[in-house]
Amino acid sequence: MAGNGFGTIFRFTTWGESHGPAIGCVVEGVPPRLPLSEADIQHWLDKRKPGASRFTTQRKESDRVQILSGVFEGKTTGAPVSLLIANEDARSKDYDTIKDQFRPGHADYTYWAKYGIRDYRGGGRASARETASRVAAGAIARKILGDGVSIRGALVQIGPHAIDRTRWDWRAVDANPFFCPDAQTAKKWEGFLDEVRKAGSSAGAVIEVQASGVPAGLGEPIYDKLDADLAKAMMSINAVKGVEIGAGMGAAALSGEQNADKMRMKGGKVTFLSNHAGGILGGISTGQDVVVRFAVKPTSSILTPLKSVDRFGKEIEVSTKGRHDPCVGIRAVPVGEAMTAVVLADHLLRHRAQCG
Amino acid sequence: MAGNGFGTIFRFTTWGESHGPAIGCVVEGVPPRLPLSEADIQHWLDKRKPGASRFTTQRKESDRVQILSGVFEGKTTGAPVSLLIANEDARSKDYDTIKDQFRPGHADYTYWAKYGIRDYRGGGRASARETASRVAAGAIARKILGDGVSIRGALVQIGPHAIDRTRWDWRAVDANPFFCPDAQTAKKWEGFLDEVRKAGSSAGAVIEVQASGVPAGLGEPIYDKLDADLAKAMMSINAVKGVEIGAGMGAAALSGEQNADKMRMKGGKVTFLSNHAGGILGGISTGQDVVVRFAVKPTSSILTPLKSVDRFGKEIEVSTKGRHDPCVGIRAVPVGEAMTAVVLADHLLRHRAQCG
Amino acid sequence: MAGNGFGTIFRFTTWGESHGPAIGCVVEGVPPRLPLSEADIQHWLDKRKPGASRFTTQRKESDRVQILSGVFEGKTTGAPVSLLIANEDARSKDYDTIKDQFRPGHADYTYWAKYGIRDYRGGGRASARETASRVAAGAIARKILGDGVSIRGALVQIGPHAIDRTRWDWRAVDANPFFCPDAQTAKKWEGFLDEVRKAGSSAGAVIEVQASGVPAGLGEPIYDKLDADLAKAMMSINAVKGVEIGAGMGAAALSGEQNADKMRMKGGKVTFLSNHAGGILGGISTGQDVVVRFAVKPTSSILTPLKSVDRFGKEIEVSTKGRHDPCVGIRAVPVGEAMTAVVLADHLLRHRAQCG
Amino acid sequence: MAGNGFGTIFRFTTWGESHGPAIGCVVEGVPPRLPLSEADIQHWLDKRKPGASRFTTQRKESDRVQILSGVFEGKTTGAPVSLLIANEDARSKDYDTIKDQFRPGHADYTYWAKYGIRDYRGGGRASARETASRVAAGAIARKILGDGVSIRGALVQIGPHAIDRTRWDWRAVDANPFFCPDAQTAKKWEGFLDEVRKAGSSAGAVIEVQASGVPAGLGEPIYDKLDADLAKAMMSINAVKGVEIGAGMGAAALSGEQNADKMRMKGGKVTFLSNHAGGILGGISTGQDVVVRFAVKPTSSILTPLKSVDRFGKEIEVSTKGRHDPCVGIRAVPVGEAMTAVVLADHLLRHRAQCG
Repeated sequence: MAGNGFGTIFRFTTWGESHGPAIGCVVEGVPPRLPLSEADIQHWLDKRKPGASRFTTQRKESDRVQILSGVFEGKTTGAPVSLLIANEDARSKDYDTIKDQFRPGHADYTYWAKYGIRDYRGGGRASARETASRVAAGAIARKILGDGVSIRGALVQIGPHAIDRTRWDWRAVDANPFFCPDAQTAKKWEGFLDEVRKAGSSAGAVIEVQASGVPAGLGEPIYDKLDADLAKAMMSINAVKGVEIGAGMGAAALSGEQNADKMRMKGGKVTFLSNHAGGILGGISTGQDVVVRFAVKPTSSILTPLKSVDRFGKEIEVSTKGRHDPCVGIRAVPVGEAMTAVVLADHLLRHRAQCG
Repeated sequence: MAGNGFGTIFRFTTWGESHGPAIGCVVEGVPPRLPLSEADIQHWLDKRKPGASRFTTQRKESDRVQILSGVFEGKTTGAPVSLLIANEDARSKDYDTIKDQFRPGHADYTYWAKYGIRDYRGGGRASARETASRVAAGAIARKILGDGVSIRGALVQIGPHAIDRTRWDWRAVDANPFFCPDAQTAKKWEGFLDEVRKAGSSAGAVIEVQASGVPAGLGEPIYDKLDADLAKAMMSINAVKGVEIGAGMGAAALSGEQNADKMRMKGGKVTFLSNHAGGILGGISTGQDVVVRFAVKPTSSILTPLKSVDRFGKEIEVSTKGRHDPCVGIRAVPVGEAMTAVVLADHLLRHRAQCG
Repeated sequence: MAGNGFGTIFRFTTWGESHGPAIGCVVEGVPPRLPLSEADIQHWLDKRKPGASRFTTQRKESDRVQILSGVFEGKTTGAPVSLLIANEDARSKDYDTIKDQFRPGHADYTYWAKYGIRDYRGGGRASARETASRVAAGAIARKILGDGVSIRGALVQIGPHAIDRTRWDWRAVDANPFFCPDAQTAKKWEGFLDEVRKAGSSAGAVIEVQASGVPAGLGEPIYDKLDADLAKAMMSINAVKGVEIGAGMGAAALSGEQNADKMRMKGGKVTFLSNHAGGILGGISTGQDVVVRFAVKPTSSILTPLKSVDRFGKEIEVSTKGRHDPCVGIRAVPVGEAMTAVVLADHLLRHRAQCG
Repeated sequence: MAGNGFGTIFRFTTWGESHGPAIGCVVEGVPPRLPLSEADIQHWLDKRKPGASRFTTQRKESDRVQILSGVFEGKTTGAPVSLLIANEDARSKDYDTIKDQFRPGHADYTYWAKYGIRDYRGGGRASARETASRVAAGAIARKILGDGVSIRGALVQIGPHAIDRTRWDWRAVDANPFFCPDAQTAKKWEGFLDEVRKAGSSAGAVIEVQASGVPAGLGEPIYDKLDADLAKAMMSINAVKGVEIGAGMGAAALSGEQNADKMRMKGGKVTFLSNHAGGILGGISTGQDVVVRFAVKPTSSILTPLKSVDRFGKEIEVSTKGRHDPCVGIRAVPVGEAMTAVVLADHLLRHRAQCG
């Protein structure tokens, strides 16, 4: 109810602040007898880990995950899986100056307005550090989905520079620091982002996640449509301002003829001749690739001093020093993948519940 | 759990099919002693009612709402409010031909894949007729929010034709059949949509909803952020493929400096010098206008025959005759308003629960 | 959240007041393709119907149920099943005198204290008439459980007079107006209850429900134990003050040796040599009969004038005329059966969700 | 959904096994700005701690609680409070012999039947050690309720020996190792339980919890009645087989006249002349003391060899050595208090949500 958890049957609840002793989550509804180790989870956490390149924050966190419960002799037991990740490199003193200040674009003012108290150190509960827990939960979700379902994310735009989709190559994604599927554009981004970084500025981004192998039939009409839950999942990620399924906002400009995904039989199975639907019709998966995109706003922490106010109602100028991602969108790729995985795993179990 | 309800404290659950005896909903968590009559609800239903112009479906439905419970001597009692709207003009025979067919873009195939049974008459449960229940629930949500909160929607794009935002005039919205805030563009749409309609084709649309007077502090970190719940709410509406908050997908192209909403004091209160955030930071309302946009795909029912398959795996051609909205986006305006109202009302009560 | 629904995957939400136009419920999570007709539900409603004998209220209600959604061509579709039962014999004028009075033992004072408004006609929302919706939902739950699971209830005590369990005969249950499994005790009750009725007094009762054929493995540790959910289910029935599983309160007086249900193999299956556990260990079904008992307090509506107060703080005497059950426990038997059915059906689906 | 949490607005989710590295819980919905320290929680944990007398298990656990999140500078922030308690004295080897055996009365067989895997060490997830997390959550619930609400528990029966209620003295409760409010009976229990312990047997118990100062109006009709939630709360505690509110099972034997709690005005406030209702009418608190009782079965771990089976279907004899509570009911007193506190705190916030 207080908003710290996600999912219904497969459900995880996260806790922790950026500069507290640790962060973590409790993952419930995990089917029993799945092989699960810390290494299985660590693999995905390492993709999100800060400091992987000069384009992400220089905070040093090993992000080592510990399994505290729910696994016995290497297998899940059906009991809740409690995961803990220690905070190692919190420099709380860096934040003393902003303790009473509201940084534009950050959640400082709204947390204060809501709670009348604020853990200002590193963004407290509002820090993107919380997303490590999502990635950990996503790793378990992938186990539930099994090898037949493949979930891959990519960065398709940084600032105003979108990729050329005709050059899409999944192999490129791991070969550059941006999870970019278009090697040429990745090069361009490097120059662009170096400038942004040096200027103490920041850039937004668009992430696309594709899930292949999703069986037809997942999603619950009317309000827990597969796309509705994906939209919520993505919009709950820090700094996200837009979510699209398939043709997305662009669907508005299409005619009925253009937008229709025609159907044919192929090898005894229903196939579609295009995928404007993004793999979802009426809130239920069609068996095609599920395609989700989301936009991340530019990091709010920038060097340029901005007009703001403090909690005493005084007008001030704020500029943010310290260690920040010039483009938080990069590290949002594994987070978007994880959120897609948890939505799909939950709906797989939900479907099984009602439809057997 | 099965996805027919929305909200937590203020929660409504809908039921009914397009061609069953009736549709309706049960609205729970309504604070006691609010004045509420059928007329209060009817006012909003009439905005969504079919047949208001030649640009919407010609199905004749009076959409009369009946209050069956939860109101005593003109006031809510705190007990659930049960609402019922009879179906009057269902022509089920129109649908006999498609009984075994899967219409591209519709939920026919996915309902079949999920449930192995399908009420094909008028789209059954997947019909946009269900949204009448949302509008009814939204009317009650508005009562909870009170007169201080104003929620208004408008159509800002039909097909490829967007409005000119500099001409935005709320008074224009009620003066054309499109809820269009730009009288000049409304004229253009008239011609465009007449052509679409005559060609038996269809067009998509973009709707924008603005909520003014929302107090700062609504929204629950982390997963039930105000924007996350709005995204889910909008994406759960039939045919929606994209949702944006504030700057939306366009935020990706901005720099940190451009995107930051600077803050100043005005009359002793915090104000913002712009609203790229769409009134939400860290998932919590800032006190600015909450701004949500969503894209509706073109109606899937078109005259042009399309390649498809039937439930026996036979390849067919489908063209859809009958009564349809050439642009379902028009009637989505009051639905988007209603969903905004229910999200805000729920979060108002949730905030009160935890923070007093 | 507001407490009008029960269950998670199989979930029903009830609405309606004693003297409103109708009562009803929305049943969600029903698996698709189950045969379901109004007659299937009516069968169980008729068991609970008032006026079956002189020992129950003389209010005349045919309790005809209507299915408004979720069933197509005689089968469930997976969409919510909306059920409606009209109120036919509401004599609201009978209640004018108590409109400002708080009747001892009734919910008059507490509804007033909570909501500041009260539909006083026939108990309003607090009327036991609401339990008709439970019985209707229970009928659907039985369909989900299938013929392999048999749920039967019986009255085992009226006032201070308990049955002799050695004479337990399920065939007797339908042969007397009390659902009493002991024909001899039923006779005694007849005399006892006639006196109670003539004196304008009332009596309490104990109901026992037994469910056979429940597979081992149902129930969710820790908080949604099968017995925890049964306890909540029974305690939520009007006038219930105690719930027991298996040995119940009496378990406290047993030694570890006496209480232990020893186990042996029989035909390749685990069997138990006794059933103090009531078919549940660690919150999970053992495969034995699930045994639940609950105590219903004497009807609060009695002729004897009782000291009370009204809503203006005036001290008064209240005596309740009108049509009442001298022992509400009798009609609680089908309600207890229904609540057992809904708990089991929900846990069957929940188990399937997590454990496949 | 998977049953590891309790509550709606104030909600806690527990995790951990008896012999894992730690146990703990995440507490959500805590109002902001409440003073909270580890010492505040430790106070209540120490009441439940094993080894306080020879009548409880000799396992040595300091049960030190750590707050990992949600508290900043000594005050709650509104973010989830994560609590961790390390396991210190787990002797897993003691359990090697029962690894494939099903102990009668324990959850061994049912966990196996449900999950097909079982952490047999010390009862795993089914261990009463989990209740430490409940006590910790209860400590926070008490903070929410404030000093005006007092929640006190007592043991009122061990084995067949009930207290004499006319000698009830709250001061006695802390002066004997049984939380017994009747000093004379406590003496008797000492002798009785010494015999039980020496015989390697065990005894059941009845606990009563009383909450004073509860405002009228808490509880949500129909299914989340205050008593329904209390019944679920108590029945979810390990080994509980019965729950009573006020007159409880005994209410069945009363007449309407005897059972009615008459009302008068006193100092301008409604008062009751008796409390058979246990402070709850129609599922809503009356303002009187809320009175709950529950029965705990005798500990299933006894020395006497019992007929059982193992997971290979072999018939065996099981006797349980090791460290056990001869009467688990004793340590259930602080657990019952905690569960009462969490139910009341949740309903306080729920009431505030809907009714302001």
